[in-house]
Amino acid sequence: MRIAVLGTGMVGQTIAGKLAALGHEVTMGSRQAGNERAVAWARSAGAPAAEGSFADAASRSEVVVNATSGAASLEALAAAGAANLAGKVLVDVANPLDFSHGMPPTLTVANTDSLGEQIQAAFPDALVVKALNTMNCRVMVEPGLVPGSHMVMLCGNDGGAKATVAELLAGFGWPPADVVDLGDLTAARGMEMYVILWVRLMGVVGGPDFNIGVLRGDQ
Amino acid sequence: MRIAVLGTGMVGQTIAGKLAALGHEVTMGSRQAGNERAVAWARSAGAPAAEGSFADAASRSEVVVNATSGAASLEALAAAGAANLAGKVLVDVANPLDFSHGMPPTLTVANTDSLGEQIQAAFPDALVVKALNTMNCRVMVEPGLVPGSHMVMLCGNDGGAKATVAELLAGFGWPPADVVDLGDLTAARGMEMYVILWVRLMGVVGGPDFNIGVLRGDQ
Repeated sequence: MRIAVLGTGMVGQTIAGKLAALGHEVTMGSRQAGNERAVAWARSAGAPAAEGSFADAASRSEVVVNATSGAASLEALAAAGAANLAGKVLVDVANPLDFSHGMPPTLTVANTDSLGEQIQAAFPDALVVKALNTMNCRVMVEPGLVPGSHMVMLCGNDGGAKATVAELLAGFGWPPADVVDLGDLTAARGMEMYVILWVRLMGVVGGPDFNIGVLRGDQ
Repeated sequence: MRIAVLGTGMVGQTIAGKLAALGHEVTMGSRQAGNERAVAWARSAGAPAAEGSFADAASRSEVVVNATSGAASLEALAAAGAANLAGKVLVDVANPLDFSHGMPPTLTVANTDSLGEQIQAAFPDALVVKALNTMNCRVMVEPGLVPGSHMVMLCGNDGGAKATVAELLAGFGWPPADVVDLGDLTAARGMEMYVILWVRLMGVVGGPDFNIGVLRGDQ
């Protein structure tokens, strides 16, 4: 599959690397083609990996992964271009974290709205699926780092788009039973607000390689 | 222990019932002494159970459990009286849920503040511990309803108060390893925001008898 990964940070590098290793044709997108980190990544990832501007990456891909920082996401996607996102699965992995007031972080949008919904509103023809934002990027692409049954959540307004994302997650190694579809994109509120709890749990666990699982009683 | 449970709803009844069954001297507090539901509860719970106004309940108790609805909590605690809360462990189980705009609910306070912190600010001499708000009340007092290792979180600014709450949780049947101390009371933000995710998870699970557990990789 031709996949754009927007963002050259740790999350973008990790997801892009995994997708390329799985044989997808990955283009890492950044503000300007020739970004040093994107070039280095494309070189190390090998033949099916490329880099370019946000628009380059999105235009040549069927699926777009938003792995930019939450504060920069809307601008990055605008640079990618609404026409280049139209009709495509847009996997939103970003969290609208605000560290400007120090720790603990807050969210730039919360409670009555979410970054996922803001992206969908700004790009109504994209098929936005919120996913993977509830864990460290190492765990995203290698769920086996955390032993046992733990979950990756997703939500979105298009069933077909969610099925495509579920396939990508299966490729990452997520057992189908651990993929939890929370429904429409308003569930992105809970998925993003959970990240504030995640930060505190990380402090207790002592590192980022953990995740939560749902345990069920008889209903 | 002499414990006040403020609130006559499902959560208050469930917690008060369990505490009384464990042999604590429980007083259920409500807006006015003689509340029909509180009277019925005290009668059914037996000898060590009583009922009274919020102030009656708080004044005769060493520990106060806030099991009122989040929207009514500050008013209920004001009626209990700052002097009756001073120096006491105040277990805040409430969630600031707002259903006035329909489903999904939002929070009346979130992100940069929390109900737990608002209660602490309004009653600076109380020893506020946020706990148990992240699950259905049946699971709160009977964790074995959900098989496996799942967690009850707590946070607060006073270590001794948290130790008292941890003891009460042990009485409810929570294994010490499943009691997660998230640190100071600012962690109440994440604990309360998680509830918006909990509502969505309940939709997937199909009922309220579930909980989350933390699974850890090597850090």
